Amino acid sequence: MKYNVVFQPSGRRGMVVEGISLLQASRDLGADIEGPCGGTGKCGKCKVKIEEGYFEKYSITSQSSNLLPLTEQEKAVLTPDEQLDHYRLACCAIIQGDVLVFVPEQSSQAKQVILESSRGRSANLNPAVKKYYIEMKKATLDDYRDDYMRLKNALIENYSHLKDEFSVDYKVLLTLPNVLRESGWKVTVTLWNERNVIAVEPGRVEEAYGIAVDIGTTTIAAYLCDLNTGMLLKRDSLMNSQVRYGDDVISRISYCMMNEDGLARLHNLIIEDINKLIERMAEAAHVNCENIYELVLVFNTAMHHITLNIDPRYMGSSPFVSVIREPVDIKARELGIKIAEGGNVHCLPVEAGFVGADNVSVLIAEEPYKQDKMMLLIDIGTNGEINLGNRDCIMSTSCATGPALEGAQIKHGMRAAPGAIEGVKIDRHSFEPECKVIGGGVNSSSQTGYIKGICGSGIIDAVACLFKAGIILPDGSFNKKLDIPRLRRSSEGKMEYVLVWAAETSAGQDITITQKDVRAVQLAKAALYAGAKILMQKRDVNKLDGVVLAGAFGSYINKESALLIGMFPDCALENVIAVGNAAGEGARLALLDKDKRLEAKEAASFVKFVETAAEADFQKHFFEAMYFPHAKDSFPHMQNILDGEEK
Amino acid sequence: MKYNVVFQPSGRRGMVVEGISLLQASRDLGADIEGPCGGTGKCGKCKVKIEEGYFEKYSITSQSSNLLPLTEQEKAVLTPDEQLDHYRLACCAIIQGDVLVFVPEQSSQAKQVILESSRGRSANLNPAVKKYYIEMKKATLDDYRDDYMRLKNALIENYSHLKDEFSVDYKVLLTLPNVLRESGWKVTVTLWNERNVIAVEPGRVEEAYGIAVDIGTTTIAAYLCDLNTGMLLKRDSLMNSQVRYGDDVISRISYCMMNEDGLARLHNLIIEDINKLIERMAEAAHVNCENIYELVLVFNTAMHHITLNIDPRYMGSSPFVSVIREPVDIKARELGIKIAEGGNVHCLPVEAGFVGADNVSVLIAEEPYKQDKMMLLIDIGTNGEINLGNRDCIMSTSCATGPALEGAQIKHGMRAAPGAIEGVKIDRHSFEPECKVIGGGVNSSSQTGYIKGICGSGIIDAVACLFKAGIILPDGSFNKKLDIPRLRRSSEGKMEYVLVWAAETSAGQDITITQKDVRAVQLAKAALYAGAKILMQKRDVNKLDGVVLAGAFGSYINKESALLIGMFPDCALENVIAVGNAAGEGARLALLDKDKRLEAKEAASFVKFVETAAEADFQKHFFEAMYFPHAKDSFPHMQNILDGEEK
Repeated sequence: MKYNVVFQPSGRRGMVVEGISLLQASRDLGADIEGPCGGTGKCGKCKVKIEEGYFEKYSITSQSSNLLPLTEQEKAVLTPDEQLDHYRLACCAIIQGDVLVFVPEQSSQAKQVILESSRGRSANLNPAVKKYYIEMKKATLDDYRDDYMRLKNALIENYSHLKDEFSVDYKVLLTLPNVLRESGWKVTVTLWNERNVIAVEPGRVEEAYGIAVDIGTTTIAAYLCDLNTGMLLKRDSLMNSQVRYGDDVISRISYCMMNEDGLARLHNLIIEDINKLIERMAEAAHVNCENIYELVLVFNTAMHHITLNIDPRYMGSSPFVSVIREPVDIKARELGIKIAEGGNVHCLPVEAGFVGADNVSVLIAEEPYKQDKMMLLIDIGTNGEINLGNRDCIMSTSCATGPALEGAQIKHGMRAAPGAIEGVKIDRHSFEPECKVIGGGVNSSSQTGYIKGICGSGIIDAVACLFKAGIILPDGSFNKKLDIPRLRRSSEGKMEYVLVWAAETSAGQDITITQKDVRAVQLAKAALYAGAKILMQKRDVNKLDGVVLAGAFGSYINKESALLIGMFPDCALENVIAVGNAAGEGARLALLDKDKRLEAKEAASFVKFVETAAEADFQKHFFEAMYFPHAKDSFPHMQNILDGEEK
Repeated sequence: MKYNVVFQPSGRRGMVVEGISLLQASRDLGADIEGPCGGTGKCGKCKVKIEEGYFEKYSITSQSSNLLPLTEQEKAVLTPDEQLDHYRLACCAIIQGDVLVFVPEQSSQAKQVILESSRGRSANLNPAVKKYYIEMKKATLDDYRDDYMRLKNALIENYSHLKDEFSVDYKVLLTLPNVLRESGWKVTVTLWNERNVIAVEPGRVEEAYGIAVDIGTTTIAAYLCDLNTGMLLKRDSLMNSQVRYGDDVISRISYCMMNEDGLARLHNLIIEDINKLIERMAEAAHVNCENIYELVLVFNTAMHHITLNIDPRYMGSSPFVSVIREPVDIKARELGIKIAEGGNVHCLPVEAGFVGADNVSVLIAEEPYKQDKMMLLIDIGTNGEINLGNRDCIMSTSCATGPALEGAQIKHGMRAAPGAIEGVKIDRHSFEPECKVIGGGVNSSSQTGYIKGICGSGIIDAVACLFKAGIILPDGSFNKKLDIPRLRRSSEGKMEYVLVWAAETSAGQDITITQKDVRAVQLAKAALYAGAKILMQKRDVNKLDGVVLAGAFGSYINKESALLIGMFPDCALENVIAVGNAAGEGARLALLDKDKRLEAKEAASFVKFVETAAEADFQKHFFEAMYFPHAKDSFPHMQNILDGEEK
């Protein structure tokens, strides 16, 4: 016998067999009631209310008596008032007839899930990929519907919110007849956007995963997420294998232009990198790659084109035009990406020029367009993106920062991995440093041989502290007048500061900050500062209400150090925030909530792109910003920091 | 300078450059005015009327004077009244301003095109594939739209009936940047269903072709069509390479079940066959395969599944269920079919059981559902399909006919190709035959060594004439009492009739009709007759208003012979019609007119499938029908034929 069960307020409804619990029914129908105790009736989290009466809308008569009587377990958990009000525990209440069930907010899994976020922003869990369990009658001579129609009919009969507008992935169609029969006509259908059948698996398969990938010029960061809970299961990163063909986007584009198979080679490298990350994370999280149904990719425009195998050459010269900016959905298999065969790859839209989907992703993570405050939003990478604005208008630009702030092209630079110095302090009197090492302690001397190098956040810290201690002068040169053991000339005769003596390093070599390293940081921060300055001029803004520092660093950047070296115009330190990889977080949000994809599309057209490097006074701003913190601009809030330390 | 030009009644409109003719403008805007003389002003077929006045709907002021004055050519062709009424020849009238043009029915190419058809039915030329020429402004620093958006905008600006709901094929997207720039931003965009960008070619490319393919169990017939004119450019056929793995659908399905790589092997064979036909026809018609944008496929359900690489095993046993019946559109490249890279393959919907898309195709070609008369519609093939009905109801069934009627499994059988006997007459007094040979004359004796074998229509003719002459008895056995030179015993001691003596054959061997050949024809015609009989019983029909004989024969079947051997229940000969390959014709109609695809979908659900072989008295009907013309049923109209001949 089958009965009609309706869950409110979600409206999920369908026919379920007699004898199963409301909790089971809610899962079958996708109404998602909480059940953390595993349906033992102990936690009381699956409390629901049975609505009594005839409900014309659904043509059903719902009665409490359409369920088996209250169990002892329920009597123990529910208050007498709740019992009178027809409250039940969904895991204990066994279906015997039609029922209309009201699921209170606190019992619903569909409530707002607070996704793990550096900012604590909330987002709905509403992925494009959803799974639906169905049972079908097997085919008979009287019911000779074709397999696909049988499947479509069962979806609609069991899940009333679905519409008969399905399409089926060709490769999935090929698996259909055997899967249906081998499973005894009980399968889990995976739908993309509630329309495209992208997988059909035998039996009940709840596992559904997705991956957000931030493809940077230097670093690729990936996030494996559970699409049922929104949980971040695993994060991993890789050096972009393309770095061997050039450090920045311009050199990558050049490589594509100068070599006949250049694009194919770079394209294949990035696909291999993505597959490596997928495989590594899936293994570590004990996830089957066949249960990964979607990837959301964000990247700058050059990486976007190369990843999609689109010729990026016309982006490399005036008028810097991209081939496609709108969001792109491609079958993973068309790109050679190894997830579920029918799986999808969603690329967030590109903005303009080099300002790519990664910046759009930063915007949907930080949502400056929903704020009144005048915010400066900097995404630090090999290609830096800068956004300035609020709900009225947002302007954005990109600048060539170089890979220094990611620890690349720095003498002892490395990516943020165990053994990397991620934080530095230097005593202003003894000039002795104190390093914080990833995977190690603060006091490096006890960690003999452990230290391997310095990552992006460590570089910024080190340069800021060297400047603060007077070891580096405002123009970026070492203070040759200082006579301290750590300040010396290298074998090439260039000045350098020894951050860690050989005895404490894994390579048995001193780790130093060289003059060249300092210059690389100067160039990077000057580009960011100049870009921000021009946007502020265009927008006629003198004072920032806040600054957000984002970047695909392993560690958060030290905002005090960033202000000290003058990476951005002056701002009260309490209004500066470092958020980590905002582009990756935006990608994750778009993976978990498909409405964020619409928001991305809107954001990409809302934001106004400015080609700052083409501005007449860009060079002037750039050179002035080469100084620590700046040749001309004043930094009242920096003085506060210095004064504070003096006290 | 650009001007607004509007064509009525089609409503096509857009901006065109000054100085081009109305004919050119009509082509650019897809309004399709006739121009058979090549625009020389001679034929007068491109006569159009200029509407004068202000047209608010289009915000234009149209004047005759917005065209250069009447040319001498026009004065010679147009009557004085026409000249006063602002008639012009579109090929002579040069645009100098906005104009609203009325295109009379006789000047419009968009009028009903009478597609080459055995029945003379008309159909609209309205293919799913259409081409649009656009010119774009090149990208500049001020106009840095991405390539794809630039293309979409140009489509909408130039062709107002298009909507901004485009999607672009991934592989086509990859070609976009280079094609746009190499062509100087002047390209032809090919749209599928006015939405999907399936090709972008440099410059003006008018060539657009499609192919209809009827994939039979034994024969594959293909039709190369010009999508601009509806013209059939080339037809070609092949023996289905799968025949080596079995003669009928059941043996093919068995092969897939019994061999692990069986499906893959049969699938690859059919794809190779299709590619061979495409290549051969394209070469013969001097057509570039890159300009073939769509294939429409029709087939029985088993061939449908195998062609699409779908496991057909469950169709082979009760309850005979297919995997998918609805129409399927697949990228040609996903199937390995070699046409334009973004090209589409459209499969007409399958009905039920073995009654496949080929029968649906026969229905849309013959349209019995639009008629009042009670029609019997037989599609003769290795798998025969039978339809009975009219606009009230149509019932259909399939029967295992075997390949005999296609000339296969007949001792000297061959497909309808040069050297094949396609027609036979036998003198009722001398018992001497007269053969009509494809590519040869009637009097075979003058064609020494030319005759190779006998094709399907020849077999039916031969058996009918042998019966009529009394050489074969009603039970199908040879009349041993006759003592004539051509009737003899073979080396195996079986009776046979010598149709052609060795001297006249290419192989130097007598061509005979054997007892086994006659039995094969009996089995085939009995299956068809029994199927038709059961449908007539179910529908309570005693008398047929008409019979349509279709089949993928090279030649039309001789309807008199078909009636003589009792291939279908009695019907007045003038109401019997042989139409050739109706399935192929339906496929061609669906290729040229996308509305026919909707009609096919409706037809597939309108027609009622009957599993006649499962009927209790099928065996009885079958055995009675083994006789010539039938063991019991009377054939009053056959007597008319015989009487007529006697006179």
